[in-house]
Order: sequence, then C-alpha cells, then structure tokens
Amino acid sequence: MPDEVMVVFTPSGRRGRVEAGISVLDAARKLGVDLNSVCGGRGICSKCLIAPTIGQFAKHGMTSGPDALSDLNEVEQRYDRIRGLPDGRRLGCQARLLADAVIDVPPGSQLHRQVVRKSAAERVMEMDPAVRSYLVEVCQPSLEDPSSDFQRLSDALAHQWGIRGLAADLAVLVRVQQVLRKGGWQVTAIIGHQDDGSARLIDLRPGFDQNALLGLAIDLGTTTIAGHLVSLDDGRVLASSGLMNPQIRYGEDLMSRVSYGMMNAGGAQEMTDSVRVGLAELVAQLSAEAGLCAEQIVDATIVCNPVMHHLLLGLDPVELGQAPFPPAISSALHLAASELQIPINPGATVYMLPLIAGHVGADAAAVVLSEQPQKSCKPVLVVDVGTNAELVLGDRTRVLACSSPTGPAFEGAQISHGQRAAPGAIERVRIDPQTKEPRFRVIGIDAWSDEPGFAKVVGPGGVTGICGSGIIEIVAEMRMAGIMDQSGLIGSPEQTGTPRCIADGRTFSYVLHDDSAQGGPVITVSQGDIRAIQLAKSAVHAGARLLMDEFGIDELDRVVLAGAFGAHISPLHALVLGMIPNCDPARVTSAGNAAGTGARMALCSRAARREIEAQVQRITRIETAIAPLFQQHFVAANAIPHATDRFEKLAGHVSLPEISFQAAAGRNRRRRR
Amino acid sequence: MPDEVMVVFTPSGRRGRVEAGISVLDAARKLGVDLNSVCGGRGICSKCLIAPTIGQFAKHGMTSGPDALSDLNEVEQRYDRIRGLPDGRRLGCQARLLADAVIDVPPGSQLHRQVVRKSAAERVMEMDPAVRSYLVEVCQPSLEDPSSDFQRLSDALAHQWGIRGLAADLAVLVRVQQVLRKGGWQVTAIIGHQDDGSARLIDLRPGFDQNALLGLAIDLGTTTIAGHLVSLDDGRVLASSGLMNPQIRYGEDLMSRVSYGMMNAGGAQEMTDSVRVGLAELVAQLSAEAGLCAEQIVDATIVCNPVMHHLLLGLDPVELGQAPFPPAISSALHLAASELQIPINPGATVYMLPLIAGHVGADAAAVVLSEQPQKSCKPVLVVDVGTNAELVLGDRTRVLACSSPTGPAFEGAQISHGQRAAPGAIERVRIDPQTKEPRFRVIGIDAWSDEPGFAKVVGPGGVTGICGSGIIEIVAEMRMAGIMDQSGLIGSPEQTGTPRCIADGRTFSYVLHDDSAQGGPVITVSQGDIRAIQLAKSAVHAGARLLMDEFGIDELDRVVLAGAFGAHISPLHALVLGMIPNCDPARVTSAGNAAGTGARMALCSRAARREIEAQVQRITRIETAIAPLFQQHFVAANAIPHATDRFEKLAGHVSLPEISFQAAAGRNRRRRR
Repeated sequence: MPDEVMVVFTPSGRRGRVEAGISVLDAARKLGVDLNSVCGGRGICSKCLIAPTIGQFAKHGMTSGPDALSDLNEVEQRYDRIRGLPDGRRLGCQARLLADAVIDVPPGSQLHRQVVRKSAAERVMEMDPAVRSYLVEVCQPSLEDPSSDFQRLSDALAHQWGIRGLAADLAVLVRVQQVLRKGGWQVTAIIGHQDDGSARLIDLRPGFDQNALLGLAIDLGTTTIAGHLVSLDDGRVLASSGLMNPQIRYGEDLMSRVSYGMMNAGGAQEMTDSVRVGLAELVAQLSAEAGLCAEQIVDATIVCNPVMHHLLLGLDPVELGQAPFPPAISSALHLAASELQIPINPGATVYMLPLIAGHVGADAAAVVLSEQPQKSCKPVLVVDVGTNAELVLGDRTRVLACSSPTGPAFEGAQISHGQRAAPGAIERVRIDPQTKEPRFRVIGIDAWSDEPGFAKVVGPGGVTGICGSGIIEIVAEMRMAGIMDQSGLIGSPEQTGTPRCIADGRTFSYVLHDDSAQGGPVITVSQGDIRAIQLAKSAVHAGARLLMDEFGIDELDRVVLAGAFGAHISPLHALVLGMIPNCDPARVTSAGNAAGTGARMALCSRAARREIEAQVQRITRIETAIAPLFQQHFVAANAIPHATDRFEKLAGHVSLPEISFQAAAGRNRRRRR
Repeated sequence: MPDEVMVVFTPSGRRGRVEAGISVLDAARKLGVDLNSVCGGRGICSKCLIAPTIGQFAKHGMTSGPDALSDLNEVEQRYDRIRGLPDGRRLGCQARLLADAVIDVPPGSQLHRQVVRKSAAERVMEMDPAVRSYLVEVCQPSLEDPSSDFQRLSDALAHQWGIRGLAADLAVLVRVQQVLRKGGWQVTAIIGHQDDGSARLIDLRPGFDQNALLGLAIDLGTTTIAGHLVSLDDGRVLASSGLMNPQIRYGEDLMSRVSYGMMNAGGAQEMTDSVRVGLAELVAQLSAEAGLCAEQIVDATIVCNPVMHHLLLGLDPVELGQAPFPPAISSALHLAASELQIPINPGATVYMLPLIAGHVGADAAAVVLSEQPQKSCKPVLVVDVGTNAELVLGDRTRVLACSSPTGPAFEGAQISHGQRAAPGAIERVRIDPQTKEPRFRVIGIDAWSDEPGFAKVVGPGGVTGICGSGIIEIVAEMRMAGIMDQSGLIGSPEQTGTPRCIADGRTFSYVLHDDSAQGGPVITVSQGDIRAIQLAKSAVHAGARLLMDEFGIDELDRVVLAGAFGAHISPLHALVLGMIPNCDPARVTSAGNAAGTGARMALCSRAARREIEAQVQRITRIETAIAPLFQQHFVAANAIPHATDRFEKLAGHVSLPEISFQAAAGRNRRRRR
C-alpha cells in the first residue's frame, strides 16, 4: 500500500492526495466534499453510501482500479446482511482508500443536495435545513468526571460533530437524563442551527432514530390556509392540505377583521385564538394524511400578509388600517411553536418570514424568494392572487411590491358555487363558441366532463363547486363565447342563443353543470358572480399598473401568475379576463403557489432565509390604499378585458366578440375584431 | 470662552481636555467617567447630579472657579422649581463646562457604584446589574420610513444608547405598539443585557418611568426558602422574607424526597408544583412587605442544592440519589420566569447559579462567591448550615467543597419547640452556670428576657419557639452550665441542682421559658432535641474534617460560619457544640446567610455571574456519601464538643465541666479542666 493515494470525487470534481487507509468519509471531509452522515461513521445511518468508479480516466489523469477500496469489513458485512448494500455501493465511513480512486457521491448521499422542482421553470431547491439530526455516543458519568449529563452530551456533540454552544429549553432538558440512559449512552440529537453559529437541542431520542425529520410550511392566507408537510432530508412534499381560515366569520376581508377587533373588546384575541385553532387543525390533517406523527415536525415556516401576521401573533392590527400603516414588527421572527400553540414537536421553532412594509407582507417576500425577480434582466411582474393579490415588479436594478385588496372571489368565496380548491371543485372550463356548451375538469379526476366514463367516475353529487382557477377560466370562456359582453353583462337566452342562460331575477345566469336529475347541485355562474370577479380582477390589474407607473414602463415583458388556489392559472384566460395588463401570452407563465413555495424554500434552506431577510430591505413597497392613480386604474380595468386597452397581444390567440347586451333584447350585435 | 477646557472628575481622578461648552455628562462619557443617566440627557431622571468643586487644586495643577459651569438653564430651573436641586448639585446633562473645572461625581450618581455591606467583613458589592432602564425618543412612523414600530424602537436604542441586537419575546412585542403611542413616542425600555452583548426587551413603559427596578434573590433551601427584594439601582434590600419549603410534606431531608419521587408516579411533578407554589407565595409576601408591585421585579437569581435544583426545574432527581450522582445539568441557566411559574414581570429572566457537582450545589457556589475563599492566603473553612451544610475549604491554590446532610434540626424542624427564624423565635440564650437560670433574646425585641420591661414588650404568648442560632446557643450553654454532659445526656434535677430539669418519660428536659401562667407555651429542650442536634452537628464536623484530610491540614486557621437561620451564629457556641473542628474562637467569624448573599451579588452584578461560572470549574467537590472516613469522623464528633479532640483552643475562653450523667443518680462528679 502506498503512503498516499489520489482521490477524485464526482460530481463535484474535488480531488486531492490523502493518506492511504483513510475512510472515504474522512477523505471527503478533508477535501470539503459534500458527503452526508448522521451516525458519524458508525455504519448505521447509510447516509454516506458512495459508488467507486472503475476505469481509466484521462480527464483526471488516473486509473481507478477494482482494488482501490478495502474489502467489506465486519460492519459493512453486517449492514449488507441486515439492510442490504445496494449494487455497486459502499458505506463511505467503512470503505478505506487503498489506491488511487474515483468516487461518485450519488445525489442521495449529498448533504446539500439540489432538488429539482417539477415546475415549468425547473428551478432547483437547495437543501440546507436549519434542523438536522446527529447520532452521538455520550460518555457515561463517573466519580472522576463530575460533569452533568447535559455537559457530556454537549461535549459529545462538540467533539464528534463540531457543534458548539449547545442550548436547550427546559422542556427538552428535563428529558435528557432519561433518554441518555434509555439509549445506552447512544442518542440521536435533533439540533436547530442558529444564524449566530450556536445550536439548540430541539429533541433527543434514544439510540439511532430512523424517523424522518419533518418540516411544516404554511401559507396563511386571508381566506384559506395551505400547508405542506416536507421531508427535511430531501425536500419532498409528503402531504399538502388546506382549510378555510376560521377567521372568516369575523369578516371576509382584512379591513373587516381590523374593524371587528376595534369594535369588539377582546375581538382581536378571539381572532388570534381562532386562527391558531385553524393551524392546529391543519397540522392534524397533514399528519393524518402522511400517516406520520406531529412530534416528528421539528421546524416550521409561515408566510402571511401583515394583518394575518399581526392577528396570528396577537399584535394589534389597528395601525395597519390607517396610514402610514406601520407594522408592530416586520423582521423575521423565530418563535417557539408553543408560543403560537402549534401542536408540533414542543422544541420546534417557527420561522415567520419578514414582512416588507405596510400592507406588503411576508407572502410578497415569499413570492420574491420563489420567483427571484431581482435576478431578471428585464422587468418581470409576479402576481400571487388570493384575497389580497401580492404583486412584485422588478429586475436586477430594483424591485417594487404592492398588495391589492382583491376580495375572496378568486378563492371561491362570495361566488354562488365557489369553493376552496379541493376534490370535486371545477378547475378547468372550456365553452364551445358555437354551441355554447361547456366542458370542464374536476380536481381529483383526470377525465374532462365530456369524455366517456366521466359521469361514472365522478358519481352523483361529485361535482361540488368551482375553485379559483376554474372561476378565472369560466369568466374568460363566457367572454370568448359571447355569453357575456365586455361590460360583464350576461346575455339572455335570446341574445346568446343558448338555453344555458337562464333568468335569475332581473339578470341572467349561465348553467355550467346540472346534476339535479341525480339529486346533485345545479352549478351556475350568476351576474353577481361576474361582478365580484370584475372587482377582484380590477384590483389586481390596477395594482400591476401602479407598479408599472412607478417602474416607468408601459408594457410588460414577462409575467408570472401564482395563487394558492387549485391548479395553475391559465395565462391565456387571465389575459382575456384582463386580470393582468396586456402581454404576449407566450411570456406569461404560471407558477402555482409562489408564496407557499417560498415558505417551503425557507423551510429547506437557511441560505434562503438569509437571502429573503436581505432582499426585503431592498424592496420598495407601494401603498395601493393611498396611491392617487389606483382608483383610476381600477375603474378602467372593470371591463373585460379592459375599457381602453385593446390587449393587442391577444390577437392571433383568441378573438373576443364585440357585443353589448345593454342594447335592447334581441338586437344581439356581433363582430369579430 | 476658551476653545478647550481641562476637566478633572473625582473620585475617579479621570481628566482630560474637552471642547468648551460641552455638557458635563458628555465630557464624562468622553473621558470614560462612570456618571449615570437614564433619560439620556433630557434633564428628567436626575441620575447625573454632579457637584462642581471650587478652589485651587495643587494636586491637579489647576483652579476650578465659580464660573466654570454655565448658569442654570431652563431645564435645570424647571427641575429646581418642581423637584428641587440639592445644595451645590447640578444636572450633569445640562450644566456646560465653560472653564477648567474639578467635578465631583457623588456615589448616588455613579453607574457602577460600590455598595458597602454592613457586615463584619465590610466587603463591597459592585453594582452592575443585568437589567437596566433607558429612556428613549422613538421616531414616529411615516410613509417615507416604512419600518416597523419595533424597528424604530431598536434604532432609537442603538442610536441613543449604543444598544445593539435587540430581541423581545412575543409577550412584550404585543405591547410595543400601544406603549409607544401612549408615551407619545417617549418610552422607558427595560433592557436585559446578555453575556454575548445582545439585549432583550424585558418591558416597555410609556414616558419616563420612575418606578424602581427590582430584583429577587432566592435562597431555596431544603427546609426554608428565603428571599430578598433588592433595588437594582443601589443594591438595597427592600424586603426580606421566608417560608417553609412546602415540599417538607414529601420528606424532611432530600433523600426522602428523592425516594418519594421514585416510589410515587407523578411524585416528582407534585414536588415541583409545590415548590413553585411556595416561590409564588414568597413573591407575594415580599411585594406586600415592600408595598411594591411584583411586575416591577425584572430580574431574579436562585441558589439551591442540586436536589432542590432538579425538583424546581422538573428534572428527575433520582440519579442524584446514587453514585456517581451526575446532575442532569449543572451550568448556570437563564430561564423565563414564566417557565418556573414565578409571578414577577413576565419578561423577567431567572438566573440559576451553576451547580458545582454531585451533591455540591449552587448554594455552595454562592457561598464561594460571597466569601471568596479562593482569595485567601491561608486556608479558610466556610460553613453554611442548613438542612444540608455546604462546606468549602480553600485558599489561593485550590478550593474544595462538600455537602453534608445535617437534617433540618438547625432550621428548627425535628426540635420540640424549634421554629423558623421569625418574630417570636428565641435566637440568643445564656445560662448562668451557678443558678442554671436562663435568659434569652427573641427576634424582633431588643431587650433580653431578664431586662425590665421585656415581659410587657413581648406580651402573653409572644415567645413562640427557638430558631437555629438559638438552638446552637442553648445546647452549648447547657453543656457549659453542666446541665448536659459530654455525651449529650441531660441531668436530673438532683444531678444538675435545678428544678428546670424536669422528668420527661425516662429522660429529662430543660425548661427554657414557662409562659403557661399567661396561657402561653412551655418552651423546653428535650433529650430528643439534643440527639437531633448531635446528629446535625456531627455531620457538619465530619464534613469539615473530610475537607481538611483532603486538603492535607490538621488545624484550621480561620472559619466563617453562615446559615439562613435567624441572627448570626455565635462562633464560641458553635465551637463548644463542636459543630466545627477546634479553632481559635477569635478566628471564627459569622457571615449571616452567605448563600443568600451570593444570590444577591449575582443579582446585582453581571461580573459576579461571570466570576462564579468560572470559579465552579475550579472547585473540587468531595462526596461525603462515599468517602470512607466520613462515618468515622461522624461518630467521633457525636460527643460535645468531641470524643477525642480536646478543643484546646477553647481554653481561656470557656470551661467545660467534666461530668457524666451516665453514672448513678446523685453522683454528680464535677471538675473544671
């Protein structure tokens, strides 16, 4: 055996000479290679699996032979017997380097692995969670060593993992003694790493604990609360769930809730209690869905708008109701889960993403984190639609943000047959411009409603309502099919030529789905629904225009649409609706729930937290509530798509009939433009 | 006016040239002079009062004239009108330096003043509390400055006081908004300074808050809990109180309580709850006594032995019951007052002094902090007597410590008429060797019992029992007066020649006070009481011998006696009792409650906390429970003063009759040695 061997690690390409006989794990550490390990080289955790590559490597100027690694030792043999060593893989902590070698570190063994998100943009998520677990052997107490159990645990973490400055809450401290003994002085320490380099003991489990560490990412909206249960090991979403914000009974929009708090003694506290109960329920739903124990959730992030932020924390939201809208606190917060009564691991910390300013909250910050407008060469508009729309417009030079009060229509509230995005909700709609007959797709069912077998799969009463993305589509489709005119008026059966337009008092409704024969609901879109959508989309549009004014641009180059509701928003339908200003449909993409994604990114990566904390300092907020032009933009945006803007970039994609149902009944003018 | 003037500050002697016209406060800050200020130079707090000294100062080579300071400005005039400027004093923040000056900073204006303790040793206590208050002006919110209320408060503290890295718990955060507005953007911030340089907002009060900041120092003993309410401004004790540890019902000594916890499911929790209730009661007592609100208590320190430490924190004490006695945690702890359910300011932190090791606890650490054996040239023994005696023997080279289980006799428990040190308790006793008649002094009454007017002052039933220091004295006096022999046996009336010795079953009791004619109690010392005291004092003596063995010395040069019970222990009586090994009585001093003093020092000074945290690392603990020689020392110490040691150093101070009541009744041998 030579004294030294050359080792090259792929895919990083890191290389160097190391003493012969050293373990692959130790060599990786010496060379700064990103090779995982939880058990610290005891051959237990299998996080350090590596693959020796055999062959001649001209690129590296070396040969990696079949004898480059030591034979399987006892530990590896036992591991292979019990758990099975995958083909061509070795335990990095056991295999020793005997000759020059090229060693591949597969993605599953990389500590800071990059996880590709399966979105249109195919961006990657860096895994660098704040909480990790470490297996340690702790010295037993003796008369000679008079130190405490906690001291010996701290020493072990310092010595075996380089973790310094360990602190622990009393709730965990009281269990240290017992767990050390139960684990026979071998324990798994769940450690939260703080930005200042110190470490907090979140939990301690006897022996080598194989349970996955879970994180909780919450997008706390005005109308809906969405949550993801995420593996802190690889960033996978193990469960997603949502519920209506129980605060809805105190007011559908934020300002009603602020008023409720002002008008009713103890009202703010009532709302705080109710949203906390909602979060607890969400945790229960998510744990049940994933079949995992809520105690395994050791970290959490929350994004929300400033009013929800204050109402969740128990801060008085009144100041947010009047200029200059100062939040009580806007910086990122690390709170004990128990302070917010969130029933996850009692040692867990909840990370609240920072607010930007005024009414521009952590949800906007999370959108920035997710969509990175500050890295775009040309200005990009990101719109996250909810009961408030968070709008961000920026490029490398600067980023502007505002929040626009859309109301809950896009989340299915205030809509006759609106509902939260959940199985049974209509999420996609198409209307034939000739026959005026609709077809649609329902969450949880692959087939469209006009495909064979749909009725059988969906069953009686299986279509329950319309969710946000469905609402956007149906209004746009009604416009394109000539069922509704530019002003938003639904035509009569005579004007539209379809019996699906039915009289509903002095206005007309469009029947999307009639399940009454099976005892199910008749799902219609009423004139009132259209008015609600018009108000909502005008608010979004006006917010976008306001940002463009401030940015000094007249046209949008690129738009990203996001929202917590249902499937991705259809760019074309959003344009037909005029929810966003005129833009080439090919340059509008959909990003799902950007705020929720931002919450997940902050959950998976400490770097992401640092990044957004730095970013919020650089974002300029625009207050829609006091911007003189907002009202003017809002009124002009009421028409569908717009009163004055011709939306030229839609030409070639769709044709919008120029009709008006204001004229006398029967005089149904129609022109294609 | 010259450009620059020379200023000399006394008593520090700091001097330097400063620009003419500068305020005395600013000059003091520039020159690093310790001049206090809470309001930051607004002429409100009067903490910066200074006294210009007029005259020629050869020592300083300068003259300080009557015009060295500017005339009273409006602020000072108003202050003088409303609150009155003391003679010869000026507000340092208002008076400006116009010519060379000698300025005296009186003790009341020194930030880090030294407070002389009124004890025999006349040591000083440095004021450097972890919690201080600061008056700040906070910027109002504006549309231009979109920062949060908390951010603007942080900025104000950074800018006006150099306080960086402000953090706050949610409970305080929720009040920031309202307090800022109530105070008209002027608020008093109560700040806790952490060792890492960061600061925590403990409380926020509108305007300039004049309420004193209070601290709570607790000596949590096995039998009694003693507490002091201390001004964090000047270290004064504003109230002192004590109560029996409610855990007594679970066992009088620590090992009984550990057993109770082992034998009864939930028993440890019951004991934790009960001691916390006790602490809450103590806080109520202290606040009532001082007539102050418990919310004003913004800092607290607790010293206790390891078992009480574990039982208070809710840590399982079982391991402390068996070798090698590892504590669950021994380092100093900063806990939220709410975690321990102590009803003081919700933002307050409780500082638990560090344990040393095994059974040697924070009470021993506090004794070291108070008595500083590590600074002594010759070995000094410090004994803190309680239900456990904490013994420390050390000099500059090393410090040894042990804890010896005395039982609760010295605290008045297990003694027929024993009681806690409180008004009505006998604390001093003398017995005439000729007449065998006793006289005594009672806590709360200045006169001795044989002085005129005593009966009137004390009233019927006013003498209620005997406290610790009284118990030590009466047993020693009985020995000196020949009422009790060396073995501890009380003689018959015939043997002793006094009718105060009365038959009590098969043994005799000595009547100390008979109040039965007035319907009060008959206070006696029984044979059983003597046996309990013998066990207790032997444990102390044996612990001291064990430390001497380990230290390698045969004789004590100096002893400090301390204890939480009643007045100071009488050195001579402690020696006659043989509670401590033979020593020149002139070299035995009494220090009151050393552990309690240590708790107060840690409360008043961050430097003291750092000091004791460093010291505990250097102290060697000796475990009495497993030391082979302990039992032997214990048995030999059962006689009074000792079976084999003649206590030669007592000669010339007292004479101990050589009598034995074991011999036939009536054969009362008596010799003076």
